[in-house]
Amino acid sequence: MPDADLSGGDLALVAIALLISLAALGFAAWLVRAVLAADQGTVSMQEIAKAIQEGAGAYLRRQFRTLAVFAVIVFGLLLLLPVADGGLGTRLGRAAFFLVGAAFSAAVGFIGMTLATRGNVRVAAAAAAGGHRPAFRIAFRTGGVCGMITVGLGLFGASLALLLFQETAPIVLEGFGFGGALLAMFMRVGGGIFTKAADVGADLVGKVEAGIPEDDPRNAATIADNVGDNVGDCAGMAADLFESYAVTLVAALILGQVFFGPVGMVFPLVVAAIGVIASVVGILASNPGSDDRNWMSPINRGFFVSAAVSLVLVAAASFTILPTISDGLDIEVSPQVLGFLSVLVGIVLAAAIQQLTGYFTETSRRPVRDVGRSSLTGPATVILSGISLGLESAVYAALLIGTAVYGAFLIGGAAALYAVALAGCGLLTTAGVIVSMDTFGPVSDNAQGIAEMSGDIDEEGAQVLTDLDAVGNTTKAITKGIAIATAVLAATALFGSYNASLVDALDDAGGLDLGDALSLVSPNNVVGAVVGAAVVFLFSGLAISAVSRAAGRVVFEVREQFRTHPGIMDFSERPDYSRVVDICTRDSLRELATPGLLAVLAPVAVGFGLGFGPLAAYLVGAIATGTLMAVFLSNSGGAWDNAKKMVEDGAHGGKGSPAHEATIIGDTVGDPFKDTAGPAINPLIKVMNLVALLIAPAVVGLSVGEDANTPVRVAIAVAATLVIVVAVVVSKRRSIVVGGESDATTGALTTSAP
Amino acid sequence: MPDADLSGGDLALVAIALLISLAALGFAAWLVRAVLAADQGTVSMQEIAKAIQEGAGAYLRRQFRTLAVFAVIVFGLLLLLPVADGGLGTRLGRAAFFLVGAAFSAAVGFIGMTLATRGNVRVAAAAAAGGHRPAFRIAFRTGGVCGMITVGLGLFGASLALLLFQETAPIVLEGFGFGGALLAMFMRVGGGIFTKAADVGADLVGKVEAGIPEDDPRNAATIADNVGDNVGDCAGMAADLFESYAVTLVAALILGQVFFGPVGMVFPLVVAAIGVIASVVGILASNPGSDDRNWMSPINRGFFVSAAVSLVLVAAASFTILPTISDGLDIEVSPQVLGFLSVLVGIVLAAAIQQLTGYFTETSRRPVRDVGRSSLTGPATVILSGISLGLESAVYAALLIGTAVYGAFLIGGAAALYAVALAGCGLLTTAGVIVSMDTFGPVSDNAQGIAEMSGDIDEEGAQVLTDLDAVGNTTKAITKGIAIATAVLAATALFGSYNASLVDALDDAGGLDLGDALSLVSPNNVVGAVVGAAVVFLFSGLAISAVSRAAGRVVFEVREQFRTHPGIMDFSERPDYSRVVDICTRDSLRELATPGLLAVLAPVAVGFGLGFGPLAAYLVGAIATGTLMAVFLSNSGGAWDNAKKMVEDGAHGGKGSPAHEATIIGDTVGDPFKDTAGPAINPLIKVMNLVALLIAPAVVGLSVGEDANTPVRVAIAVAATLVIVVAVVVSKRRSIVVGGESDATTGALTTSAP
Repeated sequence: MPDADLSGGDLALVAIALLISLAALGFAAWLVRAVLAADQGTVSMQEIAKAIQEGAGAYLRRQFRTLAVFAVIVFGLLLLLPVADGGLGTRLGRAAFFLVGAAFSAAVGFIGMTLATRGNVRVAAAAAAGGHRPAFRIAFRTGGVCGMITVGLGLFGASLALLLFQETAPIVLEGFGFGGALLAMFMRVGGGIFTKAADVGADLVGKVEAGIPEDDPRNAATIADNVGDNVGDCAGMAADLFESYAVTLVAALILGQVFFGPVGMVFPLVVAAIGVIASVVGILASNPGSDDRNWMSPINRGFFVSAAVSLVLVAAASFTILPTISDGLDIEVSPQVLGFLSVLVGIVLAAAIQQLTGYFTETSRRPVRDVGRSSLTGPATVILSGISLGLESAVYAALLIGTAVYGAFLIGGAAALYAVALAGCGLLTTAGVIVSMDTFGPVSDNAQGIAEMSGDIDEEGAQVLTDLDAVGNTTKAITKGIAIATAVLAATALFGSYNASLVDALDDAGGLDLGDALSLVSPNNVVGAVVGAAVVFLFSGLAISAVSRAAGRVVFEVREQFRTHPGIMDFSERPDYSRVVDICTRDSLRELATPGLLAVLAPVAVGFGLGFGPLAAYLVGAIATGTLMAVFLSNSGGAWDNAKKMVEDGAHGGKGSPAHEATIIGDTVGDPFKDTAGPAINPLIKVMNLVALLIAPAVVGLSVGEDANTPVRVAIAVAATLVIVVAVVVSKRRSIVVGGESDATTGALTTSAP
Repeated sequence: MPDADLSGGDLALVAIALLISLAALGFAAWLVRAVLAADQGTVSMQEIAKAIQEGAGAYLRRQFRTLAVFAVIVFGLLLLLPVADGGLGTRLGRAAFFLVGAAFSAAVGFIGMTLATRGNVRVAAAAAAGGHRPAFRIAFRTGGVCGMITVGLGLFGASLALLLFQETAPIVLEGFGFGGALLAMFMRVGGGIFTKAADVGADLVGKVEAGIPEDDPRNAATIADNVGDNVGDCAGMAADLFESYAVTLVAALILGQVFFGPVGMVFPLVVAAIGVIASVVGILASNPGSDDRNWMSPINRGFFVSAAVSLVLVAAASFTILPTISDGLDIEVSPQVLGFLSVLVGIVLAAAIQQLTGYFTETSRRPVRDVGRSSLTGPATVILSGISLGLESAVYAALLIGTAVYGAFLIGGAAALYAVALAGCGLLTTAGVIVSMDTFGPVSDNAQGIAEMSGDIDEEGAQVLTDLDAVGNTTKAITKGIAIATAVLAATALFGSYNASLVDALDDAGGLDLGDALSLVSPNNVVGAVVGAAVVFLFSGLAISAVSRAAGRVVFEVREQFRTHPGIMDFSERPDYSRVVDICTRDSLRELATPGLLAVLAPVAVGFGLGFGPLAAYLVGAIATGTLMAVFLSNSGGAWDNAKKMVEDGAHGGKGSPAHEATIIGDTVGDPFKDTAGPAINPLIKVMNLVALLIAPAVVGLSVGEDANTPVRVAIAVAATLVIVVAVVVSKRRSIVVGGESDATTGALTTSAP
């Protein structure tokens, strides 16, 4: 393993990357000013926006308070865990950068969301003033802030660690990635439960029971629904993409050092810095031109411009920075070609996923049209067709991602894992634009909600917002596809780091070799793979049932308000929005504990209990099943949502027809699929990989060599298992105890049923 | 590897096993006589039964004609494929035993179903005559025929091969297992599509549109629905369990030879012979006593008696036949203890799965009650709660199975794979009773249908049949759980055979060793695992959408008959039942091609295209995901079905309430889950494993050594991939072309919609 110090030239490149990261944050600040300068709309709009801001802010503050405790505990545990290489300084650095990663992840979510809750009303105002173009521009720039902070902070953290720690930076960065991923997972799960509890609850009691339309101000859950868009789709997704970015960089740095020494660490940073430049260009290029009529075109233009800029600059960087010949490695191409081609694979993959996701979720394409048509035979066929669409589309996405990994494998030869990690970096060169695209979704969704509730908008303005909202639905689906692709690439690459870490640890334990411990055909490893797949299923099931429970409580509260304040229905009384926001806040924070503990502790139980071979198999099982499950849940949900929109636009009988009712049922089923369980699998996979990486030296140390200690090893596994079991049992029992109103998991509503 | 000839004592044991297998067939014949001797009921009942018999017979004959062509092609291909060990005789034997396996699988399905279509009317007649006990006895004995033929033919084939081929028997038996599994998979998929197309179609047009009850004679799809119960739940399941039995035996024989030589092959046969004896005792013990009131008790008694008998006899056999010390193998216990404990693990696993499945699908337990209660908030919450129930229950089942495999792994030490295979044999010692339990389901379901349609039954008799039908639902769910457990054990064990086959083939190719080719952490292997998981998703998606399409055509036909023959509604005209049977027959045979080709050719594409390492990973991905998916689909479906029954029994508003409508939607979604896609995953996993095992020597031969030939290897992979792609595309396009009535995959009904 080449393990020299960084040269002066390398350090200069790192310093430049650091400066570029600061420039990204500067550009974000400029975008903030531009957004805030826009008109804030009518008093009524501002009032509603203020309620959303307050609700969202209160949720995030409460969440951060809860998570801070958790972060401190993990910080302590990290100090106790041995590192494979390096001393106390490295261990301290890793723990400190864990906190930095967590803080950055939180900051990305918080800042992005804060701006989104200010951008939304300005988008509504701009639409009311009559223009697609200004409304679009504000929405996209609001997203741009999120995008630039994501890439800026990610690059800043990585280059800072490299400057400070140099050759032990990869280990320190494990902490950084873990902090980012862990916080992102909690924000994803918590935000996902919040947003869908409010959304499903609002729909069940509003559209289905009371017969009032979506976003009707008489529904006490509407503000919570809008708050949810921000804390789930916006803060959650931003934190998630930040961690994708950070973890991919971490994997590339670790493997770069293993295969190519210092230059192998510097190159991914350079690629990331290029991504920052490309993102700025892409965001500026997304400004809609005077001839844009299809509102996906400026977004597509931004994406492709950004990809093209990346490609050119990466080519230049590869052939400048990387060596021409590899030092004793069995690879068929030169490191220069390897670097360039690998990044290219990632960029192409991003474009391919964009097309594929569009095909399966856009209303104009056949799959969604088929689901829409199945509404003529009722809800059952809507559900069945959506599920088979989701299953099939997951297969194509998985094959695309698999092809990219395999391509990188072929290019990389002996350095295959590094090539995979670089492909991940390539995928993320467009991250700035992708985050902007994604945030565009909740911002325009919110703008529509605010306009609807305030009543201060004419038909033309409303049409502007409907158009933007439809675009937002598609961009959200695309981002999810890209996020899961980054998860697979990063996890595959991290997996190589896991192997490297095992080899180091076995060396320390007395020069043992891995032997057949990692063989695919060993029965204990097959068991590991089954358990890994099982955790993905359990996590998904828990997330979905958490939404059902929390939504049940929302329905109960809204019904209570209708019953005790009859004036709400004739607009003479105002519902108490804040109570529903409180319920969602409390419930989502409580509900995220079980899936969160599962993600962190399951690899601990498997690793210490069954050994490091089954733990590797566990990760393979989780990656394989997780990829498919994530895409399945996201695309089924997206297709149902758009099938409903299709019927609402007049197909198959239009609004109020039996077909509409059937698609509403499909959409409600899809809500927790696409916005809670599906997207949370992405950080789940990475958290589990990072936990495995962090505990690898300890697992090996307790399993073999002179420090082997079976009782301690088994005790840790049993403790981890017990905590998981208790958490699962408590979350099931809670649903009985909590509500006098509720007596069962899924039946939170019975006693108040008419 | 101990590789001596079988001793005289060994041969004697094999001959005894052969005789016991013939005795099993004799017992089956005795049961046939007992069933046929019962009263056949009224003329009207007999007429209906005759229509079902004809429909079912016609379907199976047509299916066998189609599959015969396919079997001949595979026979030819098998002759071309090299074997790792042995000459032309072995190759011929393997191909011939492929045909034997396929023929036996078909015979089990055909005979079982033929008797089921005779037993059903006799059960109805016995119930009409007023007794739970005689009706129960006939239904269970009808199932017993199926059970005894399954174990009889399985044991007969295996012992015959061992007598004829001795030390090359394991290779010959690969053909036997493959023939059984392949045919079972086709019967499972075809039968599953048939039964659910008829069921879903009948429900959609009958209950939902025309407002007539289930099994109403005015519905032209009712006979097809009853035919479907026989060809899907009965013939399909019987063939499936036959192949589970055969494949598990094959795996145990292969591995037994590897680890313990001849006695290692003979012992699994002895365990299977013990299973035959235990099954006879179990079936006789299931005769309901005069104090049985809960109709699950005699069935449970049969199961546990059978398990106890097995346990005692296996203990005796282990300590008599197996050696006391192992010959140079690193195992901690003696071979005797290893043999006994491994079989014990399997028997305990069977009992545990029985309990777990019961918990998640019985109407009296909390999970189903919760799903039932969620019907108060409408269909969306019914679907969501059923899905999270399914996901979670799959996790517990997977963990149970994983624990069993891991237990066998710990017991087995260096011979871990043999221990896993023996656990599989243990699981199947109760196979005779399990198949009887399972066949009990469709027979009583059919009896209820016949009684309902004929009108020749009083309320008391109807209650008898309702009680038996509910028991049948539970036994069917349990059998599915056990079937998937056998799949995992057999696949894990076969997987070891795959490894052994690779080692042999690499030896032949010049003494190469496997090296890191099977390492879990290699990126190409991660890709293999993702592809394996993807095939399970694709297979499930294809099966579900095939049901949707075929059901659409059934709906169209029934609507047409109502329209063109208005007399049907007032009973003055008889609907044309045979047209619906024809549609189901034609469609299901056409629709099974794509999933079938996928199962056979996907491992070929991966193996020849990506190599033998990724192929192993592919199998791991498929096993892990397949286990979870199979249990998820089966249990969600089972829970929805029983939640509907719960509401129909009066809960939450009873029949006709909104809650009832919500659970009907759940049940319709669950139909293709639990009876088409879910159970077909079991043979899918085994077919893919066997294909991998069969092609392993060819893959290695073309990849390494002096015969390596990349163009040929890639050409085979490309050809296999192309066939899959064409099959998928054709099945999607067909749905457009076939119907003048249909213009889309899921919307086969639009033009005739009101």
